[in-house]
Amino acid sequence: MMRCLPLFLCACSAAAAPNRPPATAADLLANSGASDWRAPDPEQTIYMDLPAGRVVIELAPDFAPAHAANIKTLVRAHYFDGLAIVRAQDDYVVQWADPDADTPRKRPIPAAKMGLAPEFVRGIDRAQPFTPLGDADVYAPEVGFSRELPVARDPRSRTTWLAHCYGMVGVARDEPPDTGSGAELYVVIGHAPRHLDRNITLVGRVLAGVELLSTLRRGTGSLGFYTSADERTPIVRVRVAADVPASERERLELLRSDGPLFRRWLDAKRYRTEKWFVAPAGHLDLCNALVPVRTAKAGDGNR
Amino acid sequence: MMRCLPLFLCACSAAAAPNRPPATAADLLANSGASDWRAPDPEQTIYMDLPAGRVVIELAPDFAPAHAANIKTLVRAHYFDGLAIVRAQDDYVVQWADPDADTPRKRPIPAAKMGLAPEFVRGIDRAQPFTPLGDADVYAPEVGFSRELPVARDPRSRTTWLAHCYGMVGVARDEPPDTGSGAELYVVIGHAPRHLDRNITLVGRVLAGVELLSTLRRGTGSLGFYTSADERTPIVRVRVAADVPASERERLELLRSDGPLFRRWLDAKRYRTEKWFVAPAGHLDLCNALVPVRTAKAGDGNR
Repeated sequence: MMRCLPLFLCACSAAAAPNRPPATAADLLANSGASDWRAPDPEQTIYMDLPAGRVVIELAPDFAPAHAANIKTLVRAHYFDGLAIVRAQDDYVVQWADPDADTPRKRPIPAAKMGLAPEFVRGIDRAQPFTPLGDADVYAPEVGFSRELPVARDPRSRTTWLAHCYGMVGVARDEPPDTGSGAELYVVIGHAPRHLDRNITLVGRVLAGVELLSTLRRGTGSLGFYTSADERTPIVRVRVAADVPASERERLELLRSDGPLFRRWLDAKRYRTEKWFVAPAGHLDLCNALVPVRTAKAGDGNR
Repeated sequence: MMRCLPLFLCACSAAAAPNRPPATAADLLANSGASDWRAPDPEQTIYMDLPAGRVVIELAPDFAPAHAANIKTLVRAHYFDGLAIVRAQDDYVVQWADPDADTPRKRPIPAAKMGLAPEFVRGIDRAQPFTPLGDADVYAPEVGFSRELPVARDPRSRTTWLAHCYGMVGVARDEPPDTGSGAELYVVIGHAPRHLDRNITLVGRVLAGVELLSTLRRGTGSLGFYTSADERTPIVRVRVAADVPASERERLELLRSDGPLFRRWLDAKRYRTEKWFVAPAGHLDLCNALVPVRTAKAGDGNR
């Protein structure tokens, strides 16, 4: 019963005591300082170039160290270059892989490991930052943010895991839990499929270019898989940002989720003060509070 | 405090007593009978034809009678024919309107009313069906389904309202709450923006063709508005289904949300029994439980 109490208190007290902030969420970001933001770690950032543009993904080695490392091994072996987007299911996921993975023509995988142990959950670690959302959640006893990623936690089992919000990147697998490797990845492009949490390894988040994936025509096969080669979008190349000359890297920044501005931003999202709102919710869903990303030029947000 | 108790009990008991059903959600639909489904009401159904195909919308006169009637007046006056999709904002909404609405070239509106009283909430009516989701919600004291639509309720104020789930259709408005008419409509194409609930009139749901909207290239202007005419997608024509010869109507059906099969389907979504799942959530978010729609030919689901 202990684990239920915070949910109970939180869901009621938030509506009763709005404590409206003076600024809107947009105001707060417009008036932020350089120290409120951080750049992605180039060694943990992936550039996937499609014909229409670039998708930027920051990996989450805190939560999926083996999968993040394996993906970088695959990237550096040029495994993904020339592969394709193989699936687009509306209100669900877009997925990429070797289209010939199930045939004798499949691309060899030289250095990376295939079939990794699941990284569905990890232990709660005091060294790991955690900013509570400050609101209840349908799927987990506690939710919040850790190093700019949406996370859920269960204090009773002392476990924590990444949450399947829009733009989160996961490792596709077959029925046995240890069949994922990172050679086949998906991105959430619809309402958060939180029932996947703790069932599959999430490994990062799209920081820019998610609209290049979310607008792809949907596959007409089962589960949104494309049924012919001409429907697929080719992957031009994938690189680790650290392997790209510094002057050519994307200039992105994330709002620090452990800073004071982020907590004020959460409250501004929860208690909307824009005049348009006649009935501010007083509540906030984890996946409606994804950490803002901007291009490093001040005031030039990309989301 | 009374209103909190159901949330408290529900969120805890669901995880404690899974009561797993024998069938998967897909099994239940595959073995359903004709009486488990209903056809949309042709008088409350709108066909919007785009160059790439048809979007089918069922209106919600239970919740927005004035707006639904006004939209039908506009449709029957051919107001929308030749207008355009004017906005596509990633993870948010697609919107259509008269692109010249703010200019002297705007299309005249002959019969419909402009500036309707808000229909953001309505009173709870004993005659109105309500099937509880059976799980807590971040934004509302109670959630469930009424005539196949996702709804939220507040027993204390005895009010109920439609929820901003994926595919829900709303009436765009300016800052004053009474500035919506139905001449400008939007569809949710991302994670449910539930903070809009009770702030704007929802008027229906897309039953088919939402992928024709969700895949549109995103606008590069503020809020995802397109900045030039060539970016916009034209609307070929919009009709009320009742005005289309019966033999030419779409053969869609919705799973009845007040029937026994729907309750079993909810449990199957909550306690996934497919072998792939190693940790069924035991919980279900309202917007992850949208009422299934199928084409009337048995076994030929369209979602």
